[in-house]
Amino acid sequence: MTYCLGLRLEAGIVLVSDSRTSASVDDISVYSKMHHFTTAPDRLVVLLSAGNLATTQAVRNQLLRDQENPAAERNLDNLDHLEAIAGYIGEINRQVQQNSAPGPEQASGFNPEATFLLGGQVGDGPHDILLIYPQGNYIAASRQKPFLQIGETKYGKPILDRLATADLDLGQAARLALVSMDASMRSNLSVGPPVEVAVCRAGSHQVDQRMKLYDDDEYLAGLSAEWGDGLRSVFLALPRFDWES
Amino acid sequence: MTYCLGLRLEAGIVLVSDSRTSASVDDISVYSKMHHFTTAPDRLVVLLSAGNLATTQAVRNQLLRDQENPAAERNLDNLDHLEAIAGYIGEINRQVQQNSAPGPEQASGFNPEATFLLGGQVGDGPHDILLIYPQGNYIAASRQKPFLQIGETKYGKPILDRLATADLDLGQAARLALVSMDASMRSNLSVGPPVEVAVCRAGSHQVDQRMKLYDDDEYLAGLSAEWGDGLRSVFLALPRFDWES
Repeated sequence: MTYCLGLRLEAGIVLVSDSRTSASVDDISVYSKMHHFTTAPDRLVVLLSAGNLATTQAVRNQLLRDQENPAAERNLDNLDHLEAIAGYIGEINRQVQQNSAPGPEQASGFNPEATFLLGGQVGDGPHDILLIYPQGNYIAASRQKPFLQIGETKYGKPILDRLATADLDLGQAARLALVSMDASMRSNLSVGPPVEVAVCRAGSHQVDQRMKLYDDDEYLAGLSAEWGDGLRSVFLALPRFDWES
Repeated sequence: MTYCLGLRLEAGIVLVSDSRTSASVDDISVYSKMHHFTTAPDRLVVLLSAGNLATTQAVRNQLLRDQENPAAERNLDNLDHLEAIAGYIGEINRQVQQNSAPGPEQASGFNPEATFLLGGQVGDGPHDILLIYPQGNYIAASRQKPFLQIGETKYGKPILDRLATADLDLGQAARLALVSMDASMRSNLSVGPPVEVAVCRAGSHQVDQRMKLYDDDEYLAGLSAEWGDGLRSVFLALPRFDWES
């Protein structure tokens, strides 16, 4: 399983991913699910992935090959807005899935689907995050709901529903994303560290802060402990029922 | 959808259920999912339900008919421990599902499954909560994880993973269950009020406190607001990254 999320703030974007992959509970590995592409200097393209690992790797490799191909009609360097890049990634995603569709002689139950979260900015266009479905179509975050999630999304959603607003500063947004990730890692063993974080200021066209937080990371441990202690304090101060002594 | 949960504390048990049923988004109703059976005075039997509404109603009706039948070999009044009651309910649940299994001429996609959460105590036996699966088998809570959930369980789980311990008093446990329910109602529209709460002291063989909290309930609104304000305060006080100014 996987948990990745992105927030689109007025100040920029924040992207966070876990790194655990599990073909089954006895086949667990660590793979980065965050890829920051080296692109033309007028743009930023960061891609988070969830789903079939063969599909996500094949999509990434195709994107890289297209970048190296001067004859490529479309690639990450020449498309002129972020939605066009999302559509292009979506098409490659569909194509890769079709290539590995199981034949009639093969076992069912195989699922080649992959979902992506694209964060970036092209030229003077707006910075944005886009969720690219296995079908190749995509959606943007909204101002009212300034976050998108892929993978094991439910455990980490309530805190985002409560606290995610577009006016958070980038540090706050990165902390909120880590709190959401922490909830997912505690409730689902198949979501695990290292946790990667990319923080990108609007207009900078680069990843301004990149963190890779391992299991024993001091900041992450402190954050989780302070959050837990704080929750407990708030909980203990909640109003009592009238039937309590 | 549905969200029901139970906590087993040293002090007793707490059961909480939502009341929204949805055959589809344009077919939403309000049904109580908490049933407190009138039983012999040496016992307490409360049943929460999730899944197919026809199945859960049929199971409840069969339990009631068996209670009224003096010749019934087994019913809620004569079984001598809570696990036996869970097994008996599980068998009825299986039988009811078999009765409504779709024929070959019928559309697929129909799911008669139901899941139950049984809370209670029989005689001098321990008070307990048991989760009864559609297959008829069941599990108990553990001391390390003193809660069980049915229905839409994920949104409300992180806060239980953080704060649920067997030494909570009954008021605290009921508040924690409501915070968990609040998270589920905010994140999933198909979980909704009124929220029913049953609080049962160990050994009392009765529901000592029963609450039905509607949409406009003052206590629930206050709890949700104080919880949200508290979360925000804790969040804003979390340690900053070293790259923040």
